[in-house]
Amino acid sequence: MSDRGKRMHQFFLELQGRITEALAGADGAGGFRTDAWDRPEGGGGRSMVLAEGRHIEKCAVHTSCVFGRMPPGFGAEMPGKGSSFFATGISLIAHPRSAHAPTVHMNFRYLEKGDGEDARAWFGGGADLTPWVLYEEDAIHFHQVWKTALDRHPVFPYARSKKWCDEYFHLPHRGETRGIGGIFFDYLGVPDDPRGTPSDPDATERMVIDCGSSFLDAYMPILDKRKAAPSTEDERTWQLHRRGRYVEFNLLYDRGTIFGLKTHGRVESILASLPNLVAWSYGHEAQRGPEKELVEALRTPRDWIPL
Amino acid sequence: MSDRGKRMHQFFLELQGRITEALAGADGAGGFRTDAWDRPEGGGGRSMVLAEGRHIEKCAVHTSCVFGRMPPGFGAEMPGKGSSFFATGISLIAHPRSAHAPTVHMNFRYLEKGDGEDARAWFGGGADLTPWVLYEEDAIHFHQVWKTALDRHPVFPYARSKKWCDEYFHLPHRGETRGIGGIFFDYLGVPDDPRGTPSDPDATERMVIDCGSSFLDAYMPILDKRKAAPSTEDERTWQLHRRGRYVEFNLLYDRGTIFGLKTHGRVESILASLPNLVAWSYGHEAQRGPEKELVEALRTPRDWIPL
Repeated sequence: MSDRGKRMHQFFLELQGRITEALAGADGAGGFRTDAWDRPEGGGGRSMVLAEGRHIEKCAVHTSCVFGRMPPGFGAEMPGKGSSFFATGISLIAHPRSAHAPTVHMNFRYLEKGDGEDARAWFGGGADLTPWVLYEEDAIHFHQVWKTALDRHPVFPYARSKKWCDEYFHLPHRGETRGIGGIFFDYLGVPDDPRGTPSDPDATERMVIDCGSSFLDAYMPILDKRKAAPSTEDERTWQLHRRGRYVEFNLLYDRGTIFGLKTHGRVESILASLPNLVAWSYGHEAQRGPEKELVEALRTPRDWIPL
Repeated sequence: MSDRGKRMHQFFLELQGRITEALAGADGAGGFRTDAWDRPEGGGGRSMVLAEGRHIEKCAVHTSCVFGRMPPGFGAEMPGKGSSFFATGISLIAHPRSAHAPTVHMNFRYLEKGDGEDARAWFGGGADLTPWVLYEEDAIHFHQVWKTALDRHPVFPYARSKKWCDEYFHLPHRGETRGIGGIFFDYLGVPDDPRGTPSDPDATERMVIDCGSSFLDAYMPILDKRKAAPSTEDERTWQLHRRGRYVEFNLLYDRGTIFGLKTHGRVESILASLPNLVAWSYGHEAQRGPEKELVEALRTPRDWIPL
């Protein structure tokens, strides 16, 4: 395990502790259940899940640190030649109860792959916000925090990261983004790959640590402002149906979910991202003004702050 | 359009009418909403959906007849060289309200693909039953009807069809089948493909018509027997969670769903198969005896009738 790998894993564990403490505090009732798990081939992880809280219906915060050799046929599309790999990361999805409080996702990771001279190391990650009722001030705040964090480092510009996020969290069959976006980046530190960015590893590490540490600033003020807002029956119905789109994205397109399931990852941890209650109705469409306004924002991604 | 193609399309339309009439009758309250749709490139379909009935929470019965040329990159793995194609079929999924009444799926189809001498034509289809509470007599009845239908024709043996069904409706990440099985076959009539069976086309047409016509015999006695059985809160919770597995199968593995979404099929029709209300909880496991009994049957598929 490289020094950077060890440092990142320690950071993710510490961040997991900070975030779950803040979320449990904001909920006020529910606590996180912690499951440590081992990967027989090397490494393991710590899954923390809060279920049926007062304000949070479901929230999963996972960290993992896994290593070994990729099974044949996997990882061919990743940078670095050879089957050795090391990966550590944190991932989070929170589904609040109120239809006025947005669902949020965040994931940051550090990977090493390949053998000897052909080994490559890179950072990836992102965060996106999925509201059911669109509050422009929330979208602006969320984006502003990430822009401020990325602007502090000469690594990857917010504008590219924002665009990549809109492109990645996209449901082609619906012609919609999953939410109002945020940031997304990958292969930071890989110089010789068409998808890569030849960033300085130390600067990139500082940036990713800064991003992870920015999550609470990006999300908690929104959660605190919206969590106690009661939902009408119409708003709850809308929320459950929009959660269906979240499930569609995660099971049809999300690379992490599909990769995890196909490589025999821990199923309960991977699918802990799915909302606890979801609805699908035939031909269910936006009816009221706020519903139509949200769909419009998902069909035509906006620049929430000046690029 | 070939004579056989025309005949099959007419049969599927007529079958759709018969089945929706019987299901609406069994429900006693809900009626089917019918949407006819056109495919700009050729053909179209008729979607019929019953929502929020008395006994049926959601049921979709679709027929379609589409033709033209496959877009580049699609259909390469199908029999027949060339891009011309014709496809007609019926598909059905019904989600009853009572946790004691099983969800059912049925799909039969006839396809032609390729140009000139390289054209191939084949039949495919199947039916499977997904109970939330296992009644062995229902599983035996369901399988017996399909066996009787297949046994009437020298085309494809029930034993192979039953096995293929268990293999196809399987969630590898859960180590479970979707339900207690039924029948599945494909490429019937294709002599020169490793997946194909060189069956006589006229005999196969008679068999598929017989299968389609057997659906009501296979399912209606079960629905009628179970539909009014009240569900306890525990049983409802279990049903909603098991429906999550249904969604996982359809979005992660079902060839028809994924192919439909990727080829820009009619999204509302394709996803009308999803249950109207679904739950996922972290680490939700079978608690009570009947729940454990069901999971056991899904982990180790049984021969419900002598092979």
